[in-house]
Amino acid sequence: MIRRKPASDVTLAVDAMGGDNGPETVAAGAAVAVARGLKAKLMFVGDRAVLEPAIARHDALAHADIRHADSVVSMTDKPMHILRRGQDTSMWRSIAAAAEGDADAVVSCGNTGALMAVGLAQLKKIKGVDRPAATALWPTNRGRTVVLDVGANVEADANQLVQFAIMGEAFFRSLMNVEKPTVGLLNVGAEDLKGHELIRTAAGILREADPAMAFKGFVEGNDISAGVVDVVVTDGFTGNVALKSAEGAARLVGGWVRETLTGTLNAKLGALLMAPGLRKLKDRIDPSSVNGGVLLGLNGLVVKSHGGSDARGVASAIQMAADLARAPFHDEVAQTVAAVMARSSDLAESRDNNTDIPIAAQ
Amino acid sequence: MIRRKPASDVTLAVDAMGGDNGPETVAAGAAVAVARGLKAKLMFVGDRAVLEPAIARHDALAHADIRHADSVVSMTDKPMHILRRGQDTSMWRSIAAAAEGDADAVVSCGNTGALMAVGLAQLKKIKGVDRPAATALWPTNRGRTVVLDVGANVEADANQLVQFAIMGEAFFRSLMNVEKPTVGLLNVGAEDLKGHELIRTAAGILREADPAMAFKGFVEGNDISAGVVDVVVTDGFTGNVALKSAEGAARLVGGWVRETLTGTLNAKLGALLMAPGLRKLKDRIDPSSVNGGVLLGLNGLVVKSHGGSDARGVASAIQMAADLARAPFHDEVAQTVAAVMARSSDLAESRDNNTDIPIAAQ
Repeated sequence: MIRRKPASDVTLAVDAMGGDNGPETVAAGAAVAVARGLKAKLMFVGDRAVLEPAIARHDALAHADIRHADSVVSMTDKPMHILRRGQDTSMWRSIAAAAEGDADAVVSCGNTGALMAVGLAQLKKIKGVDRPAATALWPTNRGRTVVLDVGANVEADANQLVQFAIMGEAFFRSLMNVEKPTVGLLNVGAEDLKGHELIRTAAGILREADPAMAFKGFVEGNDISAGVVDVVVTDGFTGNVALKSAEGAARLVGGWVRETLTGTLNAKLGALLMAPGLRKLKDRIDPSSVNGGVLLGLNGLVVKSHGGSDARGVASAIQMAADLARAPFHDEVAQTVAAVMARSSDLAESRDNNTDIPIAAQ
Repeated sequence: MIRRKPASDVTLAVDAMGGDNGPETVAAGAAVAVARGLKAKLMFVGDRAVLEPAIARHDALAHADIRHADSVVSMTDKPMHILRRGQDTSMWRSIAAAAEGDADAVVSCGNTGALMAVGLAQLKKIKGVDRPAATALWPTNRGRTVVLDVGANVEADANQLVQFAIMGEAFFRSLMNVEKPTVGLLNVGAEDLKGHELIRTAAGILREADPAMAFKGFVEGNDISAGVVDVVVTDGFTGNVALKSAEGAARLVGGWVRETLTGTLNAKLGALLMAPGLRKLKDRIDPSSVNGGVLLGLNGLVVKSHGGSDARGVASAIQMAADLARAPFHDEVAQTVAAVMARSSDLAESRDNNTDIPIAAQ
């Protein structure tokens, strides 16, 4: 069981200076979240002179705090540069608030590479995790699927894929309150013989060393949107390509739909008749409705909002941070990773010592 | 310039027994293609006792030939099994017709692995090509983009990616009659520092050794549907995941559109008003309109139709085979691959011998 923190005790550090759209958009997004019933204290981090007027514009933010930071991480700053000289940035100070226990979660629209580096530097990794992973909440026929890694690491070995699976499962359980999320490894064919060697190895480790997981084996690209499993595990290169290819296809079809609705006078009349349904359709296709990706594997909760997020996108990311902050899953991830990795190396050793034990069917 | 064969001289060998839907669907598809103005002779390959009645049902196929084959490659047959004992299958005989010069192209709905193996065994590879690649014609905002490899090889090294780029460029030129197709390498970020080492190496080779190519550097997943370049190059694992993820997303959005159109009585009335536009939208989302992937790198033209193709899908694949058979591009591919590979190893050698020559900016 997951112990939940009372909502009123949750504080979110919001890096208010990052992103393409500036502090006004972040403040507007926070106001949308509060208007929708957000139950969390907000701490905006950034240049006080800029933030005070931006926040004052929204009655909903009357109780928000400001923590000052002199400078900003730009979207093109290199992570190494920020690590060396970025201690006075709003991103650094936001994560510091979490590291020092003043905040339960961080939300930032800033650049992913820098966010990961600053997160690692201050929050450290969860014990047993080699590399943190970036998650996406992918809309599906059945709700949402967590896909990871979507870009934190261009490569992943079999053990790292196993760790991603464990982190993704714990994350989905916390976010969706589902006891036994199903997990699949992204591959090019459902047959067990296809795909990279290392994916087959990862599947073998998961089956043997984490029998408690509802591991469903391999899934293909089209299975993600179909919602075949709750958690899809892959390396950051493949995950990033899959996510962006799908976004591109959804945008293409969305454009075709718009053309259809405005092509003729009759079509425009028809569109008027179905206006409520079309508004819902637009919301569903709108990427801001699923904005917010957690950097999993850090000893703290960091939610990355898309750099180009509008106010609604920021609101979604803030709400996600509040939901997750109430259900901390780091201890569970740390315990499971340690147990599975230990069991996996025990099994590997006993296989090496005893050729009678068959290698698990993959 | 590409020399084109007179249309009336083109013969297509159609493996009529493969696929999930059987010879009736293949015959119906061929009849659709003829009704749409196909200018090619058709040779159906398969069990004469089954094919004769299937073909006789369509007046459009009155002039089609039949070449008998006793057996069929199933969708689950292993390639190695077919290589050893598949000489009497319709797939083998179809490719034999091309290898022996009786057909200019082959169309098959059969299983991809077996088709590639049988193609390699009988047609051989184009000189200088390490591994053939499977292509997809991806619908975009600007028309069509060729993506390769979409699943023939789970991995590809830098030289193989370079060869895929050359084959894809020649293929696009032949199919679309565009003199200078643009080419991009699929990566996770447009910045040159991101992504796998081997993709950066491939980019370097292409820039140095094939300066005639309109190589645009790296593209991301969302750039495919946006039609940013004409040819997108990647390994078969990534390409397969990208293609299927995009298909899944398009299907998801298509489902949402259907819900919107039928949600209320008003919506249904609205849908009636925009019926012509909706028919066009349905055609655009329908994968059968872009069915047909060429196995590039074989010394002959093999078009793979999706295993689950309906008659319209088969018709698209047959039309594509006829279009390509008129503009053979194998000589061009062979020459370009040989020239680029030779220049690339010369450049590598001169780099090794002379540290003053800077490595090409990537």
